[in-house]
Amino acid sequence: MPPPEQRSVSVEGGIIRVSGDDWQTDDDRLAAEEPLEMRLAYWEHGARVEKPIAVTMRTPGDDFELAVGFLFGEGILRGREDFVEVAYCLDATEQQNYNVVSVSLMPDVPFDMSKLDRHFYTTSSCGVCGKAALEALEITGCEVILPGFTVDADVIKSLPGTLRDAQAVFEQTGGLHAAGLFDRDGNLLSLREDVGRHNALDKVIGEQVAAGNSVLEDHIVLLSGRASFELLQKSLVARIPIVCAVGAPSSLAVELAHTFGITLIGFTRPDGFNIYTHPERVTHCVTTHQMVHANHEAG
Amino acid sequence: MPPPEQRSVSVEGGIIRVSGDDWQTDDDRLAAEEPLEMRLAYWEHGARVEKPIAVTMRTPGDDFELAVGFLFGEGILRGREDFVEVAYCLDATEQQNYNVVSVSLMPDVPFDMSKLDRHFYTTSSCGVCGKAALEALEITGCEVILPGFTVDADVIKSLPGTLRDAQAVFEQTGGLHAAGLFDRDGNLLSLREDVGRHNALDKVIGEQVAAGNSVLEDHIVLLSGRASFELLQKSLVARIPIVCAVGAPSSLAVELAHTFGITLIGFTRPDGFNIYTHPERVTHCVTTHQMVHANHEAG
Repeated sequence: MPPPEQRSVSVEGGIIRVSGDDWQTDDDRLAAEEPLEMRLAYWEHGARVEKPIAVTMRTPGDDFELAVGFLFGEGILRGREDFVEVAYCLDATEQQNYNVVSVSLMPDVPFDMSKLDRHFYTTSSCGVCGKAALEALEITGCEVILPGFTVDADVIKSLPGTLRDAQAVFEQTGGLHAAGLFDRDGNLLSLREDVGRHNALDKVIGEQVAAGNSVLEDHIVLLSGRASFELLQKSLVARIPIVCAVGAPSSLAVELAHTFGITLIGFTRPDGFNIYTHPERVTHCVTTHQMVHANHEAG
Repeated sequence: MPPPEQRSVSVEGGIIRVSGDDWQTDDDRLAAEEPLEMRLAYWEHGARVEKPIAVTMRTPGDDFELAVGFLFGEGILRGREDFVEVAYCLDATEQQNYNVVSVSLMPDVPFDMSKLDRHFYTTSSCGVCGKAALEALEITGCEVILPGFTVDADVIKSLPGTLRDAQAVFEQTGGLHAAGLFDRDGNLLSLREDVGRHNALDKVIGEQVAAGNSVLEDHIVLLSGRASFELLQKSLVARIPIVCAVGAPSSLAVELAHTFGITLIGFTRPDGFNIYTHPERVTHCVTTHQMVHANHEAG
């Protein structure tokens, strides 16, 4: 799959900068945001059908990875083997704005439109709740991530600094979310930025899926913002065992991580972090319980 | 419309807090996140039909306002006169989890399911772009907000402090976005918090719509995070002339604000802010141009 054309992730604009009583006109850089329409091309009764699946507001760039990552997270693609190609809209009669991407399924891959409706958990009852959302994931085939992969606490602490150093645009616009994929030693394997935090993660995961890696079981992901249910869901589908966030997790993100065996870490900082679930993957945790006990006894 | 039952916006959980080499088990508060299924009940050929419209992951509380605000932003409700009532799911055979809300339209209000598909701007062409997204808003009836309403720069600077003082939960969990509605003098009229920033704004606007105020033309909104296209779109539908964000705006948010006459302010701080569009509503701007000129001449 060729990389999509390099797009600008920021645009220039004029502003008035107010500082105390001082007013100045100034130039500014803005995080670029444009719609991306994702289409799926599939085979039905021997004929090729192309349907729009979703529109997302995203920062242009890595659009093929975004589409692949999104469809993978929705359970429509199971891996690289499920699609033939990804392409920008090729209707020559229209202006090409590089904002429509089509993913063509292999002829033998079934597409069930109702998969996209799975967010309606229990349309016939009053009982929809967080538990129903987790059960829906089980029904679509998500399994518990087993223990095995571990990482040192100092590696966790190093992640925000590594991500920050690699984030060129964020410093300029202040308007982009980032997702970074790391190996066990804290080496940054991939970084993507977007106005939408779900898009940044889709791009990171989509890049791996497009390269044939749809099981990221020895990887760590770092999110620049908060950790919500949706981001944990995407991580789970990609089998990522350790999810770190610079911000706070939500209650349902913690429940998902607890249920499906993900180590969820929040408030990740150079000098510390909070472990919400499955601390057994953080290697200092072997001595942790002793230290906690020691602290309790001393206290 | 009675206020929905008071729900907890945070839940307790146990964590391991890592600070340097010190590890401690501790209690923590998490921002509550649960699915809300929004349903619309309408009349078709004399029969009452109820259909699920959307599921959003939200922080429980103010669910009726959220549903009303969401449907208003989507153009399905034009105001309080368009709906009879809002209720939690009333199927007595199921457990009541207060996660399903139905909005019942007035019998004479038409419901066009295709309005919900308007996010597919131009499904038959390659030319989808930010401009198409703005044109789609015009097609649905959004008009330019005319000048008239003004506010003093010192009022803008006071907003983040006022919001912060009123935010009880944010301090505890660090996981909630907030939206605040203010009058011209900077008095806080309404504050809502949610794990989703679009939900926080829907709740603020929905409260006003439910009370019969669907034109907020002499109000200011402050968003605790960044300003995206989606948030400006919701503000435009509610006719809010001044949108302030603590974070950065995206390029398409600025384009929307520019096109539809909204004053968009970013990086709102006690000591300053950036004006991206329509500075004529900020009253210090009358002298601003002179000051900028003076500064330029001095520089």
